[in-house]
Amino acid sequence: MATQPVVGIVMGSDSDLAVMEHTAKALERFGIPFELKISSAHRSLDATLRYIRQAEARGIKVIIAGAGAAAHLAGVIAGQTILPVIGVPLASSSLKGLDALLSIVQMPGGIPVATMAIGEAGARNAGILAARILALSDEALQHTLQSFKEALASEVEEKDRTLQERRS
Amino acid sequence: MATQPVVGIVMGSDSDLAVMEHTAKALERFGIPFELKISSAHRSLDATLRYIRQAEARGIKVIIAGAGAAAHLAGVIAGQTILPVIGVPLASSSLKGLDALLSIVQMPGGIPVATMAIGEAGARNAGILAARILALSDEALQHTLQSFKEALASEVEEKDRTLQERRS
Amino acid sequence: MATQPVVGIVMGSDSDLAVMEHTAKALERFGIPFELKISSAHRSLDATLRYIRQAEARGIKVIIAGAGAAAHLAGVIAGQTILPVIGVPLASSSLKGLDALLSIVQMPGGIPVATMAIGEAGARNAGILAARILALSDEALQHTLQSFKEALASEVEEKDRTLQERRS
Amino acid sequence: MATQPVVGIVMGSDSDLAVMEHTAKALERFGIPFELKISSAHRSLDATLRYIRQAEARGIKVIIAGAGAAAHLAGVIAGQTILPVIGVPLASSSLKGLDALLSIVQMPGGIPVATMAIGEAGARNAGILAARILALSDEALQHTLQSFKEALASEVEEKDRTLQERRS
Amino acid sequence: MATQPVVGIVMGSDSDLAVMEHTAKALERFGIPFELKISSAHRSLDATLRYIRQAEARGIKVIIAGAGAAAHLAGVIAGQTILPVIGVPLASSSLKGLDALLSIVQMPGGIPVATMAIGEAGARNAGILAARILALSDEALQHTLQSFKEALASEVEEKDRTLQERRS
Amino acid sequence: MATQPVVGIVMGSDSDLAVMEHTAKALERFGIPFELKISSAHRSLDATLRYIRQAEARGIKVIIAGAGAAAHLAGVIAGQTILPVIGVPLASSSLKGLDALLSIVQMPGGIPVATMAIGEAGARNAGILAARILALSDEALQHTLQSFKEALASEVEEKDRTLQERRS
Amino acid sequence: MATQPVVGIVMGSDSDLAVMEHTAKALERFGIPFELKISSAHRSLDATLRYIRQAEARGIKVIIAGAGAAAHLAGVIAGQTILPVIGVPLASSSLKGLDALLSIVQMPGGIPVATMAIGEAGARNAGILAARILALSDEALQHTLQSFKEALASEVEEKDRTLQERRS
Amino acid sequence: MATQPVVGIVMGSDSDLAVMEHTAKALERFGIPFELKISSAHRSLDATLRYIRQAEARGIKVIIAGAGAAAHLAGVIAGQTILPVIGVPLASSSLKGLDALLSIVQMPGGIPVATMAIGEAGARNAGILAARILALSDEALQHTLQSFKEALASEVEEKDRTLQERRS
Repeated sequence: MATQPVVGIVMGSDSDLAVMEHTAKALERFGIPFELKISSAHRSLDATLRYIRQAEARGIKVIIAGAGAAAHLAGVIAGQTILPVIGVPLASSSLKGLDALLSIVQMPGGIPVATMAIGEAGARNAGILAARILALSDEALQHTLQSFKEALASEVEEKDRTLQERRS
Repeated sequence: MATQPVVGIVMGSDSDLAVMEHTAKALERFGIPFELKISSAHRSLDATLRYIRQAEARGIKVIIAGAGAAAHLAGVIAGQTILPVIGVPLASSSLKGLDALLSIVQMPGGIPVATMAIGEAGARNAGILAARILALSDEALQHTLQSFKEALASEVEEKDRTLQERRS
Repeated sequence: MATQPVVGIVMGSDSDLAVMEHTAKALERFGIPFELKISSAHRSLDATLRYIRQAEARGIKVIIAGAGAAAHLAGVIAGQTILPVIGVPLASSSLKGLDALLSIVQMPGGIPVATMAIGEAGARNAGILAARILALSDEALQHTLQSFKEALASEVEEKDRTLQERRS
Repeated sequence: MATQPVVGIVMGSDSDLAVMEHTAKALERFGIPFELKISSAHRSLDATLRYIRQAEARGIKVIIAGAGAAAHLAGVIAGQTILPVIGVPLASSSLKGLDALLSIVQMPGGIPVATMAIGEAGARNAGILAARILALSDEALQHTLQSFKEALASEVEEKDRTLQERRS
Repeated sequence: MATQPVVGIVMGSDSDLAVMEHTAKALERFGIPFELKISSAHRSLDATLRYIRQAEARGIKVIIAGAGAAAHLAGVIAGQTILPVIGVPLASSSLKGLDALLSIVQMPGGIPVATMAIGEAGARNAGILAARILALSDEALQHTLQSFKEALASEVEEKDRTLQERRS
Repeated sequence: MATQPVVGIVMGSDSDLAVMEHTAKALERFGIPFELKISSAHRSLDATLRYIRQAEARGIKVIIAGAGAAAHLAGVIAGQTILPVIGVPLASSSLKGLDALLSIVQMPGGIPVATMAIGEAGARNAGILAARILALSDEALQHTLQSFKEALASEVEEKDRTLQERRS
Repeated sequence: MATQPVVGIVMGSDSDLAVMEHTAKALERFGIPFELKISSAHRSLDATLRYIRQAEARGIKVIIAGAGAAAHLAGVIAGQTILPVIGVPLASSSLKGLDALLSIVQMPGGIPVATMAIGEAGARNAGILAARILALSDEALQHTLQSFKEALASEVEEKDRTLQERRS
Repeated sequence: MATQPVVGIVMGSDSDLAVMEHTAKALERFGIPFELKISSAHRSLDATLRYIRQAEARGIKVIIAGAGAAAHLAGVIAGQTILPVIGVPLASSSLKGLDALLSIVQMPGGIPVATMAIGEAGARNAGILAARILALSDEALQHTLQSFKEALASEVEEKDRTLQERRS
């Protein structure tokens, strides 16, 4: 696709891909071009720093980073850019994501990371938050988000109707 | 001031004001006009809903909600708008903000809240994240954020110099 | 059935139904007419608010809300009614219901939610608590509850007898 | 006062009184006659059991039990009555009430305890929940609760007005 | 068997039996006669109280109580006897026994419960602790415990030998 | 005093003495002779091992060990004796005793430690549990414990009377 | 193999072997000779103490201890040697290694244990940390570690390339 | 002092200095030359990376990093060097160091951080662990450590003597 990506989804390992594809799917639904990148804050910091610098230059507007355990990726990226950075804690250790959540959300004053829920719900929401941010200067996207919001409500109401019919 | 606010800072009680003023100070530093609002998801939901609808209409771009304990304010607001919503967990109960953190960050798929650290660091970062989001369509603000980022680095280096001098 | 429901069981998603049916079964055992409703505090707040207002008007006496993760449903409902509201935390996230428990139980002063245990035990107990509340003005129900209480004791004693026989 | 108490507030020690008086104050606000009782599930179980039996006979409708640490009082009472029992976890140990919360809320299926937040907020809410329960068969109390609910909203809006004035 | 039991193993439900049989096995290994009893602090308190009084009279020296979730059984028994009471927290809820552990171990001053580890290890150790207590006035049992202690050491050393051989 | 101590209270540091004196006071109340010992599982293991061997030989029947943080003292002692060992977790680190509790209570199968509540309540209860254990072969102590149990009940009832008088 | 082992890997039970073999594999990768030992701080303390003394004499430079639950092995060893001791918490109880982590890491001042992550990642890292320590006086090992570090980076970059190709 | 430092103590802010000086004191006690550095993984990553590269070149053998909240400093450094890296979690947020502990210890396989206890005990132990590592190739330091170990034991025994005298 010729379209320039505006969201970068970064994760430390290909084992995180299964969850982070929920971010990709959310962005696809909103027609937001994105790129996926495997890069680590610990094992390949240089590549990560290079990626962030290029990303800004190439027109990336929002960076989403998913990581588990001692999840430093989102925080390190947030320190290297002035773009909004969204962090997704993954439940990859025996502590079920509580470690990743605290490692991502408890950032010191000065360097914010917009932290999402642990796992799939958070990965999906990262894509939706990126859409909300990008929609601030994109009226078409505002309409898509508005429809999406209404669709969420309709889905719930539809499920309720199905339940009522089944019980009557 | 004649300038239209673009960030709304909402909190459930005036007892949250002492912490949430760190958000206000951060926004002031970036020259971003904002408004403060006391409104509750439980005690004054109607006023909260009215505020959100008017806020969008009046040109608010980002909503920041601070709350403690069973902190529902950010999540409820996020369900009523397509604006980016930032949540700040406050340590107002005996569980020291762990309850507020989980109540804010663990949002189900569909409705994201950009969650910050517990307390003052998080309140300050909420203002900075709002600035990063608004800077996407405001080049002057990008420069301010870039200077702020460099100032953060300089401060650390300055503190290090002081330490080295004191020890030599 | 012609009987007017007096308990409303609300949940945010049909995926919560498997657990919340334990509430329904408990109410059926006590012969208490109830209704089930799927409605969300985040995705379909308007429908939820409409439901609460109608529910009061239609003679609902107790509202039971089950939710997982950042579980705001019970708290938001409790703010919109003066009926007793019972909250059931569901273990639907990787934090196994601890997030839902704190999101439901740690309500600020002014708006109580009667919180139950996480999961099936709590769902079942929500129905029994509703029965205890309704029995205050229903002598027949008092007798049913008394029999139920005695049956619980008998079941334990029966299990003990079985154990003693097996071991002798 | 000649009026018969309809709510019993039980606690295991006089050291719990400072917090549990928030329950008493809430009930006083609604004009609900109540009694206070110090009795322990561990140190004076016989007296506690006697109290519960007499309480039912004397017309008590709702029992509220506050306890800290391994907080068994509410659960033991709930097993001995068919009245609604409300539990208030107190932050009296070094674990800050998390122990009391889990000891009260995680009741097995069959014996519900309506659990409130840890500490003062929970103690106050216990009184309000009792009022909501009693109001089901007391129209005057329904009006008082409705006014209380509106007063909560007004207070929030008043605090907001004060804030807006101070800032203008 | 004609021998009088000296240890009573109590549990609230037959679903706890699979774990509590590790207590039974440990006692069997030491030749200590015991009895098993299903009785609940919530659902059948009267039977539990009756059991405790009879147990003392029948020559029971140590009571072991296993329970999960809001585990009140050991604490309630400890308040009704001057015998040593051992509590075993079971991992029967979604919180994996942390609730049961805190409900059992955090007893207020005056009424001790000798708390064991969560689950099977704790159930087994409850039997061994009972043996250590009973051995204080039973020299033969002291020798059995001494042999058991040496066997534990030998087992570890045997496992090490197997490992060394496998690797050489 | 000429009387031979039968309980050994061991702690790793003199900073633990303030809490562990609650154990000493409890034993004094029951007229049980005891000794206090400062010895560490990490810093002076040899002295600790020597102490345990001598203690058994000198007629010590129960060993009580208080420790904070990574609290290994009770577990290590329990592995070196067949006497009953009681562990008291102390809240000396920033984790407020949760670390000490888990370090003491989660002993593997084979080596039990009778774990008490965190801090003062647990220290006091350790003395009472030792009394319950020693009373199994000391009828006079059984009577003292019975009186103590009745005194606990009377104290609660006395506090209740004071409350009732104050309120009438 | 004729080479003298320089790292001792100790664990309390053969059930820990499956995880601790990740330590062995890491050391093999660096060509560091090691030995495996099953020995317990509770069940076979004498053997453990003998092992530590011999280990120092035989030229062991680093000791790695893996244990679960109330994990005392690493701390006890650290008190008996001046060698660097590395602790690996294992997730063998229902608390999923949080108990083992706190039991190992929260060592009091004076006796450090270099604590790793819970489970396999920590076991593997224990071997790598031992290599980093030994490399301080072994230039060849420094080069191996440098290559390993570069290989980690290459692996991440390779995974990224695979991802990019799959998506293009 | 002309001596070349061999340990680098890094921290993110001068507010961490009060705790990290316990590391410095421990190193001074062992006569190990060290340097202190204020540098942040988020606010001044470039300076941190420069420092690490220079540190290796200047003969630094061990790096100790202290940080609170989302404590990424130790992990990021560990990814940029093959030196042993020791992490000290600081209790600077409302979560009392649990966040910093998990952020430091739960490192993914490949990049170890030798994690110490939270706060002062951990800071002190970081210095002692560095000494143990450096002593592997420094016989004089081995003797100092041996004396230190004996002094720790003597201190405990001295405290015990004081206690025995006071009580006799």
